[in-house]
Amino acid sequence: MTYCVAVSLDQGLVFASDSRTNAGVDQLSAYSKMHTFGLDGVRQFVLLSAGNLATTQAVVTQIRRDMDQANIPNLCSVEHMSDAAEYLGALSRNQQVKQSGVAATTGFSPEATFILGGQISGQPHALFLIYPEGNYITAPEQSPYLQIGESKYGKPILDRIIEPGLSLEDAARCALVSMDSTMHSNATVGPPVDLLLYQANTLLPGTRLSMEEEDEYYRMIRAAWADHVKQAFASLPRFDWELSPAPPPPQPPVV
Amino acid sequence: MTYCVAVSLDQGLVFASDSRTNAGVDQLSAYSKMHTFGLDGVRQFVLLSAGNLATTQAVVTQIRRDMDQANIPNLCSVEHMSDAAEYLGALSRNQQVKQSGVAATTGFSPEATFILGGQISGQPHALFLIYPEGNYITAPEQSPYLQIGESKYGKPILDRIIEPGLSLEDAARCALVSMDSTMHSNATVGPPVDLLLYQANTLLPGTRLSMEEEDEYYRMIRAAWADHVKQAFASLPRFDWELSPAPPPPQPPVV
Repeated sequence: MTYCVAVSLDQGLVFASDSRTNAGVDQLSAYSKMHTFGLDGVRQFVLLSAGNLATTQAVVTQIRRDMDQANIPNLCSVEHMSDAAEYLGALSRNQQVKQSGVAATTGFSPEATFILGGQISGQPHALFLIYPEGNYITAPEQSPYLQIGESKYGKPILDRIIEPGLSLEDAARCALVSMDSTMHSNATVGPPVDLLLYQANTLLPGTRLSMEEEDEYYRMIRAAWADHVKQAFASLPRFDWELSPAPPPPQPPVV
Repeated sequence: MTYCVAVSLDQGLVFASDSRTNAGVDQLSAYSKMHTFGLDGVRQFVLLSAGNLATTQAVVTQIRRDMDQANIPNLCSVEHMSDAAEYLGALSRNQQVKQSGVAATTGFSPEATFILGGQISGQPHALFLIYPEGNYITAPEQSPYLQIGESKYGKPILDRIIEPGLSLEDAARCALVSMDSTMHSNATVGPPVDLLLYQANTLLPGTRLSMEEEDEYYRMIRAAWADHVKQAFASLPRFDWELSPAPPPPQPPVV
């Protein structure tokens, strides 16, 4: 499985993805699920992928090939971010159709889901989730994040923290905590964690970090969070019956 | 959906369950998913249920009926806790077979999953998860909790806190936080929350609370947790580039 999360803030966009892929327990590998495309100063795109690895790799390859072609729609030519999402949906659907024709093994699924975010010069930054069917949605306004893959474990912390006014750094920390909680509870999500902070209106690739498990900052965040959660838990209010003072120990009879 | 969690501790057992059932968005109801059976001083059982409501109700009815019959296995007569799990698995399987015969609508599933915990005089307390197939497992030794229903949202906090040496009250608080995180992120899990603390070797029903959303203690726990998580988040370590001091503001030239 996979866990990817992206956040759309007033200040820009934040992306995080794990790197574990597996086809059965004895075929574990690490592939980055974060792909970037762009023309500095003109447009920038970040793509996160979940689902069938052959499909997602074929889609990424096709995106890069199309960018060299002048006469077909591609990420260099689309006018709006929603056109980019539309284009990606069509690519993904085509690849899935192609792959399901090849292999009709029981239980095989060529499905893939994507998150696409970015900005085109003169337009606001935007974020989309593209379903396997090729249709797409934006993030909700008040909780402006999108997730793909193993999304449930890491959702509670996003629901508590994410709001449009957060700084890129706070959203990135929240994404790391969400990622850590997911990895802690689910063995199919694993490091390295890719993290990207895109500052709105720069139209530059942004700050990208790839954190192995032993990465110092990632280790610090994980240790601090584990510690803070334990403290937070320890200071929760007590049940009524815990508050009444314990009865005094029995005294020896006075002779 | 449903969310139920139970914890097996050195000191006893803790159970928590939500009460929302739904068959489509316009058929929401509240049913307790926590059922207790026992003979004070002799044996105590607590059952949590998830899945098809007709199946789980039929199983609970059958358990109560069987207890009045002298010649068949029932919760009054089983010798070991694992016999009780075996008995429950058979009841559940029978009811599912019966119900799938009646209604063969597409998408209909008579499946049900249970958690059964309790104690029989002279034996240690025990906890089992009973699968729809009727087979069952105990809780892992180091993270001694079991979940049924919408289990992923509330798992990270259990993974961080639960261990065999916790007090019943701490485990109950952890179960409440796990329940709150689940309700916060998933609309199909809802109040009231049933909570039961069973002190090992008492062979008495234990302390049972049913908490509506506005219950004072439940409200306090939720508010405190939301607050503590925000504080915990705010004090996470900063990225390198946040630590470098901002350049001093430009000074007016000295004339």
